[in-house]
Amino acid sequence: MSKEDSDATRDDLDERTTALIDSIARRIRTSIDKGALPSIELPVRGLTNVKYDEAQGYFALGDAHKVRTLTVNTARSFAQTLRLMATSRAMVEQDDFATKREAYYISKNWGDCRFDEQAESDAIMDDIEALASMHGLSREQLRFYPESHGGAVAGRLTVLDRNPATDAPVEIDCANLGSGAYSIPRAVEHLTFRTDARFVLAIETGGMFQRLNNHRFWDTACCIIVEMGGVPTRATRRFIRLLADKENLPVYCFVDCDPYGFTNIYRTLKVGSGNAAHINRFFCVPRARFLGVTPQDIVDFGLEDATHPLTATDIKRAQDALKNDPFIMAHPEWIAAIKQMLQMGVRAEQQALAKWGLNYVIDDYLPQKLAGTDSFLP
Amino acid sequence: MSKEDSDATRDDLDERTTALIDSIARRIRTSIDKGALPSIELPVRGLTNVKYDEAQGYFALGDAHKVRTLTVNTARSFAQTLRLMATSRAMVEQDDFATKREAYYISKNWGDCRFDEQAESDAIMDDIEALASMHGLSREQLRFYPESHGGAVAGRLTVLDRNPATDAPVEIDCANLGSGAYSIPRAVEHLTFRTDARFVLAIETGGMFQRLNNHRFWDTACCIIVEMGGVPTRATRRFIRLLADKENLPVYCFVDCDPYGFTNIYRTLKVGSGNAAHINRFFCVPRARFLGVTPQDIVDFGLEDATHPLTATDIKRAQDALKNDPFIMAHPEWIAAIKQMLQMGVRAEQQALAKWGLNYVIDDYLPQKLAGTDSFLP
Repeated sequence: MSKEDSDATRDDLDERTTALIDSIARRIRTSIDKGALPSIELPVRGLTNVKYDEAQGYFALGDAHKVRTLTVNTARSFAQTLRLMATSRAMVEQDDFATKREAYYISKNWGDCRFDEQAESDAIMDDIEALASMHGLSREQLRFYPESHGGAVAGRLTVLDRNPATDAPVEIDCANLGSGAYSIPRAVEHLTFRTDARFVLAIETGGMFQRLNNHRFWDTACCIIVEMGGVPTRATRRFIRLLADKENLPVYCFVDCDPYGFTNIYRTLKVGSGNAAHINRFFCVPRARFLGVTPQDIVDFGLEDATHPLTATDIKRAQDALKNDPFIMAHPEWIAAIKQMLQMGVRAEQQALAKWGLNYVIDDYLPQKLAGTDSFLP
Repeated sequence: MSKEDSDATRDDLDERTTALIDSIARRIRTSIDKGALPSIELPVRGLTNVKYDEAQGYFALGDAHKVRTLTVNTARSFAQTLRLMATSRAMVEQDDFATKREAYYISKNWGDCRFDEQAESDAIMDDIEALASMHGLSREQLRFYPESHGGAVAGRLTVLDRNPATDAPVEIDCANLGSGAYSIPRAVEHLTFRTDARFVLAIETGGMFQRLNNHRFWDTACCIIVEMGGVPTRATRRFIRLLADKENLPVYCFVDCDPYGFTNIYRTLKVGSGNAAHINRFFCVPRARFLGVTPQDIVDFGLEDATHPLTATDIKRAQDALKNDPFIMAHPEWIAAIKQMLQMGVRAEQQALAKWGLNYVIDDYLPQKLAGTDSFLP
């Protein structure tokens, strides 16, 4: 699936989006013409309808469906679903987009079927997104964009974009932005790339990203660096995924050695999250691997006195992961690493490497780790 | 002050930083040679030592000082202060930098004067920063960089930077980044600009920034757009300030109509904050003006049914501003606007304009507002 999805052009995707919305509308119209109550079949979202397929590499939506039929009770949400889809179709045609927040405000002119709160419009948007995802289309292709910031990018990469106003091609050389970086837009589906990089390095903190960028680590290591800034946003995850798919690049993650880094940041990037399974097929990066910081790194790189004791939250999160996280439970290496951390009783941040000098991370840690990518945690 | 500061080259600033540290070290050495107890004089930080000078345009540090003399009790913090200054000096020489977090970890090799917690190193760094600020030098010039992300920039602006590795000049054309944007680096002092823009538009939300960028609003309006993403980071504030000073550009703020937008986002950008007065001279943008959304805009642009009731926190924040905020209290226009909001009992987000169509903000709202910049709130 993924490879083909990634190779589709923006125009293809727009056509498929319009065709999907049209076919739903046509089915409803046919029902009405026949005097039958129209209905929409929507995938069930949530953990009850999630499966983890290791070969596929991410939490995926199962086959359970719910049917929204037009009744007195559902008249409002039924109309809202259709109007939101109509908005989506109009945005595809006009090459425009709306944030989730804007989509909520647009409804203020819909009379009785206006949304009273954004929670309502979000829930219906999630339903439509789940439906579209079964057809290989993401929310961004429906032209509903996230509010959140994309991460920053630098390195041996040229991003091929277009001028949104004139459609003229635009090339952004991410090796030539000085001390600054390229800020990923909120929708990235239309981007293509030119690169001679050998891998993508996804970095947790902005400070570490700035260090590797200022010292042109990406030039000597022949890579692309991406700042995640904590749990990566949708746009950042999709950008990394497209890079991995289109350019066939391995993705290495460089995050803190703590349960949050393992199960929230890394796990989300790699396999997605359980309660948004309908989007994982687009946003997860199954080929991501964990460079570090690992519990063993604390020993191997002498960081013991630059650690912090695990907090109660850390311990709970780690124990939960061992007991309940299908991804962790499927990988003995991760079980061992988390048990090692619990036994050591400490966590370590990526900045802790500064104990050996500010650029120890560039001169020693990263080269040593990158010499043995086979031993990265899965 | 500011204009000259902004015109100083990076080399000048580096020389002044090194000279300042050297002079402090020399004074301490002289004391020791004379057999006297060495001491360092540091400005008092905090609200007790703050003055608001309307002409100057920001909360500034007063003249109160504290003296840190070497005694048995202060031996550790005295040594830490000196070592942190020595680290700063070495980073200037090696053209390197450290985040606050890294500075904390560096100390792990300082033996008995290591920091136990980052709160300790932060407090001493704030002392050094306050001292340096009295000599026109910011923390970034001491080479301690913030962890936080810079905002995104697009528009009629070319950023002139250098390749950090080779020192070769680099030009970034912020009009030619497709749907993406320029991500502001963590330190911006070395940047210069080339622009034909007529103003800077500082935008609260990422979604609105993406809208104005995708529709090339900055091209038709002849401006530079900056995404603040809530309360702007240090780097974003300094970047806007440098643009305003070096290119003599007015700065207009486009944020939500609520007490947080007025007193946290806008007020911080314009005059700084009370509890970090030692940095305001570098980071505030005294010429910023408030484009909107104003309480009167809710009436003028028919947004009444796209508002939300003020929360208890909103009301408290607004009342506090009227009673205690020297900036608000100095401007009758702001007092009137906040009273109007309290009387209407509602707040409005910038996205609320989507009620009239997604691009109403571009086609109607912003052009109408920009036709009357004289009536912007101060």
